[in-house]
Amino acid sequence: MTDLRSTLATSGPIDLSTRASDETPGFEGKKKDAKRRLPQIGEELMDAQELLFANGIAGTTDRKVLILLQGMDTSGKGGTLRHAAGLVDPQGLAITAFKAPTDEEREHDFLWRIEKHLPAPGMIGVFDRSHYEDVLVGRVRALASAEEIERRYGAINDFEERFVDGGGVLLKCFLHISPDDQEERLAARLDDPTKYWKYNPGDLDDRQLWPEYQAAYETVLERCSTDHAPWHVVPSGRKWYRNWAVATMLGETLTDLGLDWPRADFDVAEQRRRLATM
Amino acid sequence: MTDLRSTLATSGPIDLSTRASDETPGFEGKKKDAKRRLPQIGEELMDAQELLFANGIAGTTDRKVLILLQGMDTSGKGGTLRHAAGLVDPQGLAITAFKAPTDEEREHDFLWRIEKHLPAPGMIGVFDRSHYEDVLVGRVRALASAEEIERRYGAINDFEERFVDGGGVLLKCFLHISPDDQEERLAARLDDPTKYWKYNPGDLDDRQLWPEYQAAYETVLERCSTDHAPWHVVPSGRKWYRNWAVATMLGETLTDLGLDWPRADFDVAEQRRRLATM
Repeated sequence: MTDLRSTLATSGPIDLSTRASDETPGFEGKKKDAKRRLPQIGEELMDAQELLFANGIAGTTDRKVLILLQGMDTSGKGGTLRHAAGLVDPQGLAITAFKAPTDEEREHDFLWRIEKHLPAPGMIGVFDRSHYEDVLVGRVRALASAEEIERRYGAINDFEERFVDGGGVLLKCFLHISPDDQEERLAARLDDPTKYWKYNPGDLDDRQLWPEYQAAYETVLERCSTDHAPWHVVPSGRKWYRNWAVATMLGETLTDLGLDWPRADFDVAEQRRRLATM
Repeated sequence: MTDLRSTLATSGPIDLSTRASDETPGFEGKKKDAKRRLPQIGEELMDAQELLFANGIAGTTDRKVLILLQGMDTSGKGGTLRHAAGLVDPQGLAITAFKAPTDEEREHDFLWRIEKHLPAPGMIGVFDRSHYEDVLVGRVRALASAEEIERRYGAINDFEERFVDGGGVLLKCFLHISPDDQEERLAARLDDPTKYWKYNPGDLDDRQLWPEYQAAYETVLERCSTDHAPWHVVPSGRKWYRNWAVATMLGETLTDLGLDWPRADFDVAEQRRRLATM
């Protein structure tokens, strides 16, 4: 069976405008099949995650996983968190939603605030937005000089390589949608008072800069999809595919860690005897 | 329908040795019924939590919920987290597992490290152990003077009252098991190499002090079950009941908040027009 990660991984130059957002690469079946399969994937994820978590508690691993979610507004970072990351035990999950940097954060290098949220051994971290914002909105809105933006691509690759060298695995997911997908989803938010809270007038300002953002994403995907931390383009026009794809790639990632249960650091027979006398 | 919280709430002196751990107060049916009902409770919890979370994002509420889990080793704090708290959207969940305090934490008042982990508006916090450890293990192992332990009950009540006055709701759950339950579960951990990581020889030292811990819990339940933050005794000999009970009480708590969806702080018609032109 082909690994979904290799199916969705990108390398080299990419033209997002030629990529359909409603494709379902690697998935055989229809929406109802994906929805039906998700609980089973959830069981498998729970088990694989417990193995990672157990080793973290026992102090027998330096492994940790970081899922990084990027995408235009309405691409479904929150939904992916809820329906894919939400399948695992919340004790082993560390979610960080990065907002516009605070004054204090702005006084440091852009990676300063990121480093603090890297997952600990045994944990699965999820970044809802990330250091990539600093070469996305940072570039499109010219929040930093062109030289500084240029410097950041290399800084990001170095930073991620250090994380991987320290036992980390990065699962970088670009949730790809089309302008039409976004229009439909923004309209849905404006038509439903229970969704107003997800709507921000600033989203339309960003929508107006769609081509600029896509160009910034294309540069990111080309320059920061590395051997140690490839980018995956996840077609996200169909929410059920997006959730299935991220959950499936997380499962592949956990399985690949090849961990065993931590061995007892105590004498099992002796403990049994002691327990029996109490 | 009677509120499960009022069924399980305790007030006044309590003798835990007379409380069965395998009762299922408030639940009609059997294990398979509870397991079957949990996904549906999950759906309801997700919806109720989204309402809280939405208000947090919109800045229209100061409400937040804190589930506090205490209990002897193997009472199932982790399992409750996984199966009850795990039903909600992990984005809205902030879990803290309190371990033995660090040197830095020990230099401050015992509530110092707790305060930092109180949930923000819109969030559901979960404490796996809590400030109560400082009057439980703190008392049983005489980690502080008797005067200091005595002072702490009042300090805890004041602290919790401030949290409630600031919009917080506390759901304090004591997961009650019997010595036999514990023996069975410890033995199960020693019989299964995939569970060794959950076992700690120190657990037997605590087990030896069972009566002292029960006495310390009885004092806690008597003195810190207040009108603003009652304690609930959750019979936890049956894991399915424990999970159902905590999930159900969380649902009641969220429903009680009586929140509405945040109103739009923008002109909906104008945004629709602008979107249509793009």
